[in-house]
Amino acid sequence: MRATMMYGAGDVRVEEVPDARLQLATDAVVRVLRACVCGSDLHPYRGMAATDRGTPMGHEFLGLVEDVGSEVDGLKRGDVVLAPFVWSDNTCDFCREGLHTSCRHGGFWATDEIGGGQAEAVRVPQAQGTLVKLPVGVDSTLLPSLLTLSDVYCTGYHCAVTAGVNERTTVTVIGDGAVGLSAVLSAKLLGAERIILMGRHQERTNLGVEFGATEVVTERGAEGIARVRELTGGDGTHAVLECVGSKPAYETALQLARAGGVVSRVGVPQYDEAPLGFDPFIRNITITGGVAPARAYIEQLLPDVLDGRVEPGRVFDRTVGLDAVPDAYRAMNDREALKVLVRP
Amino acid sequence: MRATMMYGAGDVRVEEVPDARLQLATDAVVRVLRACVCGSDLHPYRGMAATDRGTPMGHEFLGLVEDVGSEVDGLKRGDVVLAPFVWSDNTCDFCREGLHTSCRHGGFWATDEIGGGQAEAVRVPQAQGTLVKLPVGVDSTLLPSLLTLSDVYCTGYHCAVTAGVNERTTVTVIGDGAVGLSAVLSAKLLGAERIILMGRHQERTNLGVEFGATEVVTERGAEGIARVRELTGGDGTHAVLECVGSKPAYETALQLARAGGVVSRVGVPQYDEAPLGFDPFIRNITITGGVAPARAYIEQLLPDVLDGRVEPGRVFDRTVGLDAVPDAYRAMNDREALKVLVRP
Repeated sequence: MRATMMYGAGDVRVEEVPDARLQLATDAVVRVLRACVCGSDLHPYRGMAATDRGTPMGHEFLGLVEDVGSEVDGLKRGDVVLAPFVWSDNTCDFCREGLHTSCRHGGFWATDEIGGGQAEAVRVPQAQGTLVKLPVGVDSTLLPSLLTLSDVYCTGYHCAVTAGVNERTTVTVIGDGAVGLSAVLSAKLLGAERIILMGRHQERTNLGVEFGATEVVTERGAEGIARVRELTGGDGTHAVLECVGSKPAYETALQLARAGGVVSRVGVPQYDEAPLGFDPFIRNITITGGVAPARAYIEQLLPDVLDGRVEPGRVFDRTVGLDAVPDAYRAMNDREALKVLVRP
Repeated sequence: MRATMMYGAGDVRVEEVPDARLQLATDAVVRVLRACVCGSDLHPYRGMAATDRGTPMGHEFLGLVEDVGSEVDGLKRGDVVLAPFVWSDNTCDFCREGLHTSCRHGGFWATDEIGGGQAEAVRVPQAQGTLVKLPVGVDSTLLPSLLTLSDVYCTGYHCAVTAGVNERTTVTVIGDGAVGLSAVLSAKLLGAERIILMGRHQERTNLGVEFGATEVVTERGAEGIARVRELTGGDGTHAVLECVGSKPAYETALQLARAGGVVSRVGVPQYDEAPLGFDPFIRNITITGGVAPARAYIEQLLPDVLDGRVEPGRVFDRTVGLDAVPDAYRAMNDREALKVLVRP
């Protein structure tokens, strides 16, 4: 079968690899209907050291069950299923607490033994716990929005939930990427009446406004901080949803959190140490968020997507076949595309 | 009147200063019955640059109302009152949210215009919002425990509350100082059945056990981390109450928090940047806590102290008069004394 492999910064190839197949009785094999490129895929695209041996890519996909192991209940060939971006047994103590990303028997896609989603098919470990059956056909127009439940929408939702967003919360969202826009959508869903979106790309912030942003701040750094403070009587907002992952984004978030407020981070931190000294201490700022346990949120978010009440799939602004995945990386890295959908 | 002033590291003096007196109609003057030295007073005691002009010291006191301004209701000369370690109007939006440390008209004791508690008397701004009347006499044996509501007990309680401690929470407390022991007491009060106390001073950890610690870990650093992990099946605990404020203590806390868990900090951070990268992100660790809004907790914690059901005043292991305050700093810094009570 064909799969996407990365060999180093800027070096993405689609090549023949051994077919995905069952290895354990708890596995399934899923033929990919839709996958996509994630903002976090751009981190290695920018910085990965060159290797001889490629790394499989992609952690967001939905598809058709092709084969199931003998210990997998409730799934059969032909089912349309969604895979969250971490696989998990959905039964251990962490999963029961809703922290599937720390599953005692789970793990991440796109490692050596387990392929990635930017491929024709994927071996799914812990298939019964991992996969969620979708009540749609293979040509449903809902597939793009459903695919966002694999990662980006649930990640934005995790950001808003861990930040404690509710009807009484003012919110700043940092970042107009697909996660930031999903965070806007989620904050709106959780009832926030005021959502300030910080972003510089007008097409994206326009979608953010449609998703629920009440104000857009295009300035960055000190100017952006001054602008949000001006909008909030100098206080900042109760919740700051940091959807970028850079150190400047975190520093901005910290300065925009109202005293007693929360900074929630869902962009993978591109730093080791960060400010955590007297200022956030004296102002009682909480830092929360983390990698989103998408599996915990899918059932809850699914009905609104199926009903078309929310359309998180609008973050996709380009669709390509598998062969064009390398160009999809380039387009996203060059900010030509917000998020690229892949139809293998 | 006489008051404690610090002139630099190791240089604490008790000297004559102008009498505390009303300056605003919202002020009161309180004659100090009991004050104490705080662990945070030791930070300048260790590192303050020498100055010609002393800084008033002390932010924990209770005493007798001596005079009240014309706009102060509900307080009169002769009332026994407790002052939390931050003064506040108790009416602004932050105070109503329980974040009196960010009061819009509040501030800290022991600045140039407002004296400190290690003195014969103190001018109390925003007296009506700040002071809490105590239903005890001037010679009550409860005064030491009541005095802990000014800071140390409420600080330990804030640590446990913001960490979300409840009956289902396992807890590690880092630090066997007065705040750490107060955090143990608070975690017990909030129902935690398992409380691991990390500390090396046996007299203190013994009191910690009486306050509710179920296990004591005397090792520090990597050994301490290994020991707590061993005690918790490798996972760490849901809540880690960081009651020291040093960077190593924070680093230890981070490593001892179970995935999905919380590190709550109430020791004033002695660092600017700290680890906040991939590891806490991928494990969904929340960092919370901060300077404790003691005023928010006093009414809630007072009944158990008045009834003698809890005895947080047991953290005091020495009592001195005002003249001996300089030696109290030395004794606490040399770890001869855990916490020193002052009777001016």
